[in-house]
Parts: sequence; C-alpha cells; structure tokens
Amino acid sequence: MLGRLNHVAIAVPDLAAASAIYRNTLGAKLTEPQMLPEHGVTVVFIDVGNTKIELLEPLGVDSPIAAFLAKNPSGGMHHVCYEVPDIVAARDRLKEQGARILGDGEPKIGAHGKPVLFLHPKDFNGTLIELEQE
Amino acid sequence: MLGRLNHVAIAVPDLAAASAIYRNTLGAKLTEPQMLPEHGVTVVFIDVGNTKIELLEPLGVDSPIAAFLAKNPSGGMHHVCYEVPDIVAARDRLKEQGARILGDGEPKIGAHGKPVLFLHPKDFNGTLIELEQE
Repeated sequence: MLGRLNHVAIAVPDLAAASAIYRNTLGAKLTEPQMLPEHGVTVVFIDVGNTKIELLEPLGVDSPIAAFLAKNPSGGMHHVCYEVPDIVAARDRLKEQGARILGDGEPKIGAHGKPVLFLHPKDFNGTLIELEQE
Repeated sequence: MLGRLNHVAIAVPDLAAASAIYRNTLGAKLTEPQMLPEHGVTVVFIDVGNTKIELLEPLGVDSPIAAFLAKNPSGGMHHVCYEVPDIVAARDRLKEQGARILGDGEPKIGAHGKPVLFLHPKDFNGTLIELEQE
C-alpha cells in the first residue's frame, strides 16, 4: 500500500530565516513562499531530486502547526507524506486494522490539489503520517 | 550542495512491534533487522521506491537514540539524511557558514559503509540532519 515518499514536512517559526538557512548554508533550491490559507500554513518547497522537503510556517489564527511550534519553538520534523494508489481503499484498510484517521476520516484536498488524509501519530510510533492519492 | 534524500530515520522503542505496524497496517516491505553495534542501533529498512525509511531501535548501553526515546517514549522522527557529492567539501562549507558539526567534525563510516556527518539540530530549525557521501 505504502508508495513513494512525497515529502517530509518541517515546521519552522520563521519561514524567511529557515529559507535562508536552506538556501545559503545548505545550498538548496527553494520555491517562492506560497500562502495556503485553507491549510493554515505558508509553505516553501525544496526539491532534493527524489522527493521534496516542505518548510511550513503557521498562517492565521487556527494553524494546524501552531501547537507543534508551541512545544518545539525552534521547529522540527512535523510529518511525512506517502503516496497511495487509492486513498479510500487505503483509509478503509487502515480502519479495519484499527488505525485512527484524524478529523472526520474523509479525504480532504491537500496542498498539491490531491486528496489527503492524516493518520494518528499514536498508532505509528509518534510519527504523523499523511497519505496522498497518487 | 544538498543532494537526494537518502532516508528518514524513525526511532522506535520496539522494533518488532514497529515492523509489524509498517508491514501489516501500512503494507510496506521491510528488510530483516540488522544489528549495528558500532552505531548503537538495530535497524530495519523500508524501501518506499524513491527513498528509504529506517526504523531504529537502541542497541547496547550507549545508544545515540536512547536520549531521544527517553523524551519521546513511543518514538518519533529522529533525523533526515541527505546525500552530498563531497562530504569534506560540504563540511568545510558548513563550518564557514557557522554551522556546527556534531562530534569531532570528522566524517565517520555510517550504516551504509559511506562517510557520514551529523549537523547540530539547533542550527537547522530543530531538525537533526545527517549528510552522507554519495
């Protein structure tokens, strides 16, 4: 079921400062910041060839990464996203196995315009896993 | 400088239990556990097509992931590893930029038989970054 790693998301308190570190210190190529108000984040993508790194900064008052940054003020690895061929089949299989889906369990349209789901980190060794339809 | 994402490492308290979750719940393909006493971990690799996930369980009394698991008892994302074409050139560039290299700053032979370095997470938004020679 588990397909390619679509991205690793890193939450940061200051996207401009984090972008400068990745651009200047690590010599990475970054996209321009994209505000995604419906997801409560501003995002910068780093293409590392075989996958992407996403730097996330909170946007708005109800950002889903605000609590994480309150616990980890300098930032940290927030989630990993895997591609799956059929997100509804994946969701149903996971529920059968007893895994918990966050929210109402229905796929939402994610930052790449494709349906996504998040799995409860307590069911996956403290790792927040996003699944994205291929 | 920053090349492909070689792997994402996830520290887990119980490798057998975590392997069962990835194999049965997530339908992933895993290698057999490999004990790496010189690195203080037992490791299972998950090939997700474009990169690898490494599940790490502490091995021995001085495991480098013991402190992380003491803080995160159910486990969590521990580090990301990027490939670089020339690890000594990368190290020197990073030091010039003021980034801190963990340990004595000299590359060590990592789990894949190639030279590796770890960068101080405080210099990279709370993310522990491993660099591995391509």
